[in-house]
Amino acid sequence: MKSFLKLQSVEEVLAHIQRFSPLSAETIALDQALGRHLAVPFTAPHDLPGFDRSTVDGYAVRARDVFGAGESSPALLEYAGDCRMGEACSLVLGEGQAARILTGGMLPAGADAVVMVEYSRQAGGTLLELTRSVAPGENMLHHDEDAAAGQVCLPQGRRLTPQDLGLLAAFGQTQVTVHVQPRIAILSTGDEIVPFDTTPAPGQIRDVNAHSIAALCRACGACVTLAGLVGDDAPALRCTVGTLMASHHAVVISGGSSAGMRDHTVEVFTSQPDSELLCHGVALSPGKPFILARSGNVALMGLPGHTGSALICARVFLRPLLARLQGRTAPAQAAPGVLARLGRPLASAQGRRDYIRVRLEALPEEEQSPVPGLPPLRWRAMPLAVPSGCISGLTRAQGLVVCPENREGLYADEIVSVELLDDSL
Amino acid sequence: MKSFLKLQSVEEVLAHIQRFSPLSAETIALDQALGRHLAVPFTAPHDLPGFDRSTVDGYAVRARDVFGAGESSPALLEYAGDCRMGEACSLVLGEGQAARILTGGMLPAGADAVVMVEYSRQAGGTLLELTRSVAPGENMLHHDEDAAAGQVCLPQGRRLTPQDLGLLAAFGQTQVTVHVQPRIAILSTGDEIVPFDTTPAPGQIRDVNAHSIAALCRACGACVTLAGLVGDDAPALRCTVGTLMASHHAVVISGGSSAGMRDHTVEVFTSQPDSELLCHGVALSPGKPFILARSGNVALMGLPGHTGSALICARVFLRPLLARLQGRTAPAQAAPGVLARLGRPLASAQGRRDYIRVRLEALPEEEQSPVPGLPPLRWRAMPLAVPSGCISGLTRAQGLVVCPENREGLYADEIVSVELLDDSL
Repeated sequence: MKSFLKLQSVEEVLAHIQRFSPLSAETIALDQALGRHLAVPFTAPHDLPGFDRSTVDGYAVRARDVFGAGESSPALLEYAGDCRMGEACSLVLGEGQAARILTGGMLPAGADAVVMVEYSRQAGGTLLELTRSVAPGENMLHHDEDAAAGQVCLPQGRRLTPQDLGLLAAFGQTQVTVHVQPRIAILSTGDEIVPFDTTPAPGQIRDVNAHSIAALCRACGACVTLAGLVGDDAPALRCTVGTLMASHHAVVISGGSSAGMRDHTVEVFTSQPDSELLCHGVALSPGKPFILARSGNVALMGLPGHTGSALICARVFLRPLLARLQGRTAPAQAAPGVLARLGRPLASAQGRRDYIRVRLEALPEEEQSPVPGLPPLRWRAMPLAVPSGCISGLTRAQGLVVCPENREGLYADEIVSVELLDDSL
Repeated sequence: MKSFLKLQSVEEVLAHIQRFSPLSAETIALDQALGRHLAVPFTAPHDLPGFDRSTVDGYAVRARDVFGAGESSPALLEYAGDCRMGEACSLVLGEGQAARILTGGMLPAGADAVVMVEYSRQAGGTLLELTRSVAPGENMLHHDEDAAAGQVCLPQGRRLTPQDLGLLAAFGQTQVTVHVQPRIAILSTGDEIVPFDTTPAPGQIRDVNAHSIAALCRACGACVTLAGLVGDDAPALRCTVGTLMASHHAVVISGGSSAGMRDHTVEVFTSQPDSELLCHGVALSPGKPFILARSGNVALMGLPGHTGSALICARVFLRPLLARLQGRTAPAQAAPGVLARLGRPLASAQGRRDYIRVRLEALPEEEQSPVPGLPPLRWRAMPLAVPSGCISGLTRAQGLVVCPENREGLYADEIVSVELLDDSL
C-alpha cells in the first residue's frame, strides 16, 4: 500500500500558495467591481471635496469675528448674501461679514467656519446676531479633508468594498482596473459517485462536493466550470485534467486524494507536463489527504472525497489560493469570529491542526461575564460528533474551533474563538 | 426651523423592520442559490447516505468476530469476497467471514464494522488474519448517519451556504424554493450633486452614496435600480418616489433626511398613499437624520447625505431590512468581530449608540496576552478622527467599535469588539 511520506503543516502549504502569481488585469465598470481586487493602487487625482464645504445650515463667518460670542454677548455681523447650492460662491467675506449657507454649500472666500442657524437671529436691516463662537474649521470640511491630490487612497490588491466604490465614484472613476477572476474547473472522481440529478442505485451516492466547492469558489469571486465526474480511471482522469488545465487557472478534484487502492489524483497531477508536487498529506483534521501541485502557474488541487473534509480543506487552502490569484495583498489576518466557552473537552494530537465543528448555544445571562474587562461572553460552543464523511456535520454546525498544532487538546470551559460558517452578516 | 420630535433608539427601529413581511417565493436552480434564503424548510426525503458505507479501505466484518484481536493474537477470518464500488453488495456475511471493501463501498449484509487494510494479512488459502479489534459501527457510516428520512435538515429562512448546497445536492435537489430577491431603488437628492460620470463645476460634488449603497445592497442579495438624481425639489422627488414604489420593494433616498431648510424626504414619504412614518431621527452617531416609513409592505428609507453616515445607517438598518424581506429567520445574533485594545479614550452621550471607525494595528507580542484564559489579543483599535461627511473615514478604517447607549464613553485600553468593514474572508 502507498502511504504519505511526510505530512506538511498547514502553514507550509499556505506558504506554497503564496508562490503562485497573481493573474493579469482587466478594466471593468465601477458598479461591477464589488469584491474584486485592485490591480493598481488608486491615487487621488484631485482634492476631495475640492472646495471648502459647509456641514450644517447656518452662516459662514471668519471665526475671529465671533470669538467670545454667547447667548448674552452675541456677535453683531453684517449679512453679506447667500451661498447658492451647487454653485461657486462669488462672495468675498470681509471683516465682520457673514453669508447664509446650507449643508453642502461652498464657503465664500475669507470664511473659515460656519455658525449653525440655531445660534443666529435677525437684528434689523442687514445685521444679524450670532450667539455661539466657533473655532476655525468648525462645521465645515476643508477642500482636501476627504483626500488630498496625490494621496494613495486604496492600495494595489485591495478587495473593493462598498465604501471603496463610493470613494472611487467621488473621483469620477467610472471604470476600475482589477485582477481577472480565476477560472476554476471542478471535478469529482469515484466509481460510486453519480451526478446529482440522477437517482443513485444501491451502493451509489450523488455528487456533493462539486456543488459545495463551486459555491465556495463563487463566494470568493471565481468563475466555476462544473467539469463533471470521472470514475476511478487514471488515464481518463489524466486526459480530462490535461484538457481543463489549458483553459483554467486551477483544476480541483475531490476524491482519490489519499494513498489507498483507488487513489489516482496524485499520479494524475504529477504526470502533467512540467508539474511539481508541492504537497501530499497535511497535518490537518479533517482533511489529511490533501494534494497541491502546480504546472506553471496553474494550480492542481486534490481534495478529500469525504464531504466534510473536502469543504474544510477548501476553506483552509482553496480560499487563500483564490485570494492569491486575485492579487490580494493583505490576507485577512484579523479573521473575525466570536468568543465562546467550550462545552466539553476535546482531544487532539500534537503537531496536527484540528478544525472542530461546533454549535453555538446562548449562555444564560449569569454566566456571560466571567472575565474582568472583557465584553460579555454570550456563547457556549458544543462540539458536534459527526464523521467527516457527513455533509450534515457542517450544515448543523454554526462555526469552527481550531485546536492548534502545539496543543494536545482543549479543556472544557476554555474560552475559544469560533470562526462562523455562515459568513453572512 | 423644523426639528426632530423624538429620537428613537436603534433597537426600536430594528423592531419596526421586523414588521415588514418576507417576500414571495420562487424556484431556482440549486447552483444559483448561494446566499438565497429558503422559503420552506428542507426535510430529508430519504436516509443519507442510504446504505451502510465504509470510510476506509479494508475488510468488512462482524465486530464480534474480531473482539480481542491484536498484533500477537490475530483473529482468523474467512475471505468471503469483494464488495464492488458503486454496486449493491450481494454478499451476506456469515459468522467468521470478512469481505474486502474500499472507501465509500457498500457493506455486505451482516457486517457492522470495517477493519483497516493496514491491520490485515493473508494466512493461506481463503484465510486472513486481522490484527485489530473494532467496535460495532467503526470505520463506517450508518445508512442514516448523515440524515434520516423525515428529519428537518434546513429550516425555513436559512441563508444557503456552500455546505447547504452540498446537502441539497446529496438529496438530488436540482432546484430550490427561496424568497425572491428584493428590488431596491436608490435615489440621491441635492442640488449640489452631479452624476459620477460628470465633471463637477465649482461648488458641485459627484454622487457617492448611490454607488456605495448599491454595492452594499448587492452584497446582501438585492437587485438594485440606480434611479439617479433629483434636486431639492419636493414635487419632483414625490413623483419619482411614487413611480419607483410601484415596481420596487424599497425606495432608498440619500440626502434631505434631516430637518433643515432643504430636507424634503420626510414629507415626500408621508405624502405617499397609505404611508406610515415609522421613524424620523435615531439616537445614533453618525446617522441621526434617518427616516423609515412604509406604504403597505414597501419600505421607504431616508439615509443622511453625508457619505459616512449614509453607509453606517445602511449597515445598521438597510441590511436587516434586506434580510427580513428575504425571510431570514435567524438574524446573525453571533456577529463576528475581533477583540482589540482601544487606543485612546472616546466620549459619547448617554442614550446614543456610536459607531466609531477604527484602524487595527498589530500589538507587539509582549502585549498580546493580558487576560488570563483568553486567546491572544492581537490588535489595537485606533479611532479615526474623520468627519462623517468624508467617505475616506470608512475606506481608511478596518472596523467599527460600538459605544452602547448605556455608556458615556469608552476607556483607553478597554477591550472592545471590532466589527470588520471588509467582510471578506
